[in-house]
Amino acid sequence: MIQNFDFKNILVIGLGMIGGSLLYGLQSRRFKGTVYGLDTDSEVMKSAHNLNLINNAIDEIPTNLNEVLVIFAVPTLSINTAMAEVLSKFEFKNVLYTDTCSVKSSVLEAIQDTNQNILNNFILSHPIAGSEKSGLSASSESLYDKRLAIICPHEGNKEEDIKKIENLWEGLGSITKRLPASVHDDLFAKTSHLPHIISYALMDTVFNDLKEDSFLHSGGSLEDYTRIASSDPVMWKDIMIANKSSVLEAIDNFSLSLDKISSLIKEGNPDKLVNFFSSIKTSRDMLLPEKNK
Amino acid sequence: MIQNFDFKNILVIGLGMIGGSLLYGLQSRRFKGTVYGLDTDSEVMKSAHNLNLINNAIDEIPTNLNEVLVIFAVPTLSINTAMAEVLSKFEFKNVLYTDTCSVKSSVLEAIQDTNQNILNNFILSHPIAGSEKSGLSASSESLYDKRLAIICPHEGNKEEDIKKIENLWEGLGSITKRLPASVHDDLFAKTSHLPHIISYALMDTVFNDLKEDSFLHSGGSLEDYTRIASSDPVMWKDIMIANKSSVLEAIDNFSLSLDKISSLIKEGNPDKLVNFFSSIKTSRDMLLPEKNK
Repeated sequence: MIQNFDFKNILVIGLGMIGGSLLYGLQSRRFKGTVYGLDTDSEVMKSAHNLNLINNAIDEIPTNLNEVLVIFAVPTLSINTAMAEVLSKFEFKNVLYTDTCSVKSSVLEAIQDTNQNILNNFILSHPIAGSEKSGLSASSESLYDKRLAIICPHEGNKEEDIKKIENLWEGLGSITKRLPASVHDDLFAKTSHLPHIISYALMDTVFNDLKEDSFLHSGGSLEDYTRIASSDPVMWKDIMIANKSSVLEAIDNFSLSLDKISSLIKEGNPDKLVNFFSSIKTSRDMLLPEKNK
Repeated sequence: MIQNFDFKNILVIGLGMIGGSLLYGLQSRRFKGTVYGLDTDSEVMKSAHNLNLINNAIDEIPTNLNEVLVIFAVPTLSINTAMAEVLSKFEFKNVLYTDTCSVKSSVLEAIQDTNQNILNNFILSHPIAGSEKSGLSASSESLYDKRLAIICPHEGNKEEDIKKIENLWEGLGSITKRLPASVHDDLFAKTSHLPHIISYALMDTVFNDLKEDSFLHSGGSLEDYTRIASSDPVMWKDIMIANKSSVLEAIDNFSLSLDKISSLIKEGNPDKLVNFFSSIKTSRDMLLPEKNK
């Protein structure tokens, strides 16, 4: 499949699973321009070069490229360092920036605070894709296929630029949707960051009790429900810190639901418990997208 | 595959997914004896009869069978009613009993309290298999294949009888393991009942906040982490009540882990958060059975 993109050059900063899957996606869709990549780990850059995923070996990127998209695929709290390095090293012309970070308000603030000059050319995005695995070796050309990519435009962005970023993700197979950064952060605190916290807490409590026997008698639910506790710790540390207030609120609300169930079990009224479980089951079964039924 | 079992007759009480999968398993392994089934829903019994899964149409089970295994595949708290009905209706000779309930101490107490005369012939078992689906139509001949079946012998059971029940589950493809009933209940409160409670609480809190938009922006984790909230409400009401004290203790311990993570996020110390997440990831990755890696 040949896919048109709106850039002559694409520079991906950070060649982990998210950045690596961008590279594979561009390669498999035969991006006609040139792809460059940078990573703090020179071995990873060598690998990406050997796999023909990036044009440059270490540090061989022309500093005066024209018509460039820079994609920051780094952990959320590394965005400042990554921006500083790119802006000090290159003098690109006609450049747009985007990112893949899981928290958007903190990235927006980072640009406003330290790189106001690129603010209008920076269109925030967040591909809703990933797994508990990490690193270039976990990358896949189909990671973004049929997944949602949230675009969080701000008032300084031009409509034509926003469309180019949407076209990038759609070109990689994603469905795009626009949300304000603050709405995005509050929403994903509930539907993504909270499940990760629950997964960490479950693995912590089970391991504290059962140690090396943790999975010995499990029928599968425990493996499923702790899966994302195997995610990249640095990425998730960043998300928790960057989205602190929304995450803490989500945990508090979850604790209220947990307390409600505890009280119902303590009370031991069969009808109340069945009604509660039934109403939750009904909500889920009714709302779940067809594909997951 | 023809599999030898140690009974001439097998009567399954309760033809939901668990009982139905026993019937399919016996059929596919060409059990040489006769299989009977009872369910409170006469339509389900008709279906099972039409599918050649059970020999009897409604109420046509000889009352004086010899060499019989009775398997109670009913929700945990229905065991008393089911036992009363079987014992009042039939006068079997050379009979063993087992069950499939998810909580074992409460079943043992029910037998001790009301049917002491069959106590020594009742070998408790719990196949660690199931899904969020329920009913005869969700049954599968391979449900017990390569799954664990926990046997909880008590001091009145004879070794030869315990072996016959182990042989039943092994004949259906399971791996058997013996555990005392109280150890079983404490263990599964942590590794199975707790994940279900978490799933209910997560679905409850997300639905309270997001209503019909609950899954609209999810990347998959939310679907995964609420999957078992679609389980059978009556079955899980019974489990929560029957295993109340172990379940409440498991929730309390989980809440402590959740509070620990909340405090770390509030404090916002990056090193402490990374260390905590890393240590949890290490435990999981180290312990997880190879098949799930």
